[in-house]
Amino acid sequence: MRRKTDQIRQRILDAAYESFWRSGFARTSIDTIGTRAKLTKRTVYSYFRSKDDLLAAVLNRYSELAAQRLQHIGDRIPVDLDGMIDSLFGQLAGWAGTTPRWSGSGFTRLVVELADLPGHPARAIARGQKAATEAWLSERLARAGVSLPTERARDVMTLMEGAMSLTLIHGDKRYILAAAVSAKTLTRNATSKAPRRRRTR
Amino acid sequence: MRRKTDQIRQRILDAAYESFWRSGFARTSIDTIGTRAKLTKRTVYSYFRSKDDLLAAVLNRYSELAAQRLQHIGDRIPVDLDGMIDSLFGQLAGWAGTTPRWSGSGFTRLVVELADLPGHPARAIARGQKAATEAWLSERLARAGVSLPTERARDVMTLMEGAMSLTLIHGDKRYILAAAVSAKTLTRNATSKAPRRRRTR
Repeated sequence: MRRKTDQIRQRILDAAYESFWRSGFARTSIDTIGTRAKLTKRTVYSYFRSKDDLLAAVLNRYSELAAQRLQHIGDRIPVDLDGMIDSLFGQLAGWAGTTPRWSGSGFTRLVVELADLPGHPARAIARGQKAATEAWLSERLARAGVSLPTERARDVMTLMEGAMSLTLIHGDKRYILAAAVSAKTLTRNATSKAPRRRRTR
Repeated sequence: MRRKTDQIRQRILDAAYESFWRSGFARTSIDTIGTRAKLTKRTVYSYFRSKDDLLAAVLNRYSELAAQRLQHIGDRIPVDLDGMIDSLFGQLAGWAGTTPRWSGSGFTRLVVELADLPGHPARAIARGQKAATEAWLSERLARAGVSLPTERARDVMTLMEGAMSLTLIHGDKRYILAAAVSAKTLTRNATSKAPRRRRTR
């Protein structure tokens, strides 16, 4: 009985994830999710009180998956700075190219959709996931010998977010490739922060 | 009569702009727009055939305003590189701080909301506006003596977009201030592209 219940719950979560991913949060209804899961709206509501609750459950699960993915990437990524950055942005470019319906970071998309609702619980989950990614990056940069890794992790995050937005806007992955070059420049510069004096000969 | 018609049209456009800005496109209905404009839904439909048409009209108008704003900024912005970048990102930070409901770039938000609809006419308008901003930036950077201004304009755009997303996600404007520093580093570096060799003493 327990297992049956868990299975149905999982079916609803999968359908909700798929629906949110396809059409965004606002344009997805409990009806759509029910249809996709082949369950009645009534059944969906017996598992989740509202679309907001369902969204929170989906995001929590997606956060876990994202954390696992970072762990997985972390185990395989090159340790040297350039190799690491090439690998990160290369994966981003590969992901962006998988489908014409690619819609960028799901967490960013959600925050943008709920831009007028700063107190929405889903936004706290998205914020936590971005902070975790930034902390992970900072740790990797520190290991690669980058000075001020916290500041540089922020730079790399900013470039990744911006490149995802512009790739989505223009349908052009060159923004991601250019961002990789900029990320290298910014992190490499980090090892010598003092402004270079011009040499008088 | 003509004037009356124009006035009503303008009232609908203003109400639609305000509604889209407040709640995003997907969560705004023609009903909401009618109520805000103090007009019946029927009247709204007699001016615009659909919410999509209304969105296109709003965006076209907003694009014109954005072009005027760039012109205005361009007339006042410092010509030297650092002054220009401080001014651009300073304006961005000021804008982001005006209201807790600040939701980032309206054009970006729209593209994200319509992420699964790459052929939507509104996306072409948003794309055009971003391309125009990037071209404007490139021209300003060229005037400031930056080499490869097209590439560096892309970098600055990427940093601005990323900083807006992360400021929205974290409610923290430091992403914008940090992006300004990175923008200076990247554009300054542009004058000496060759990799620096380490000096053997």
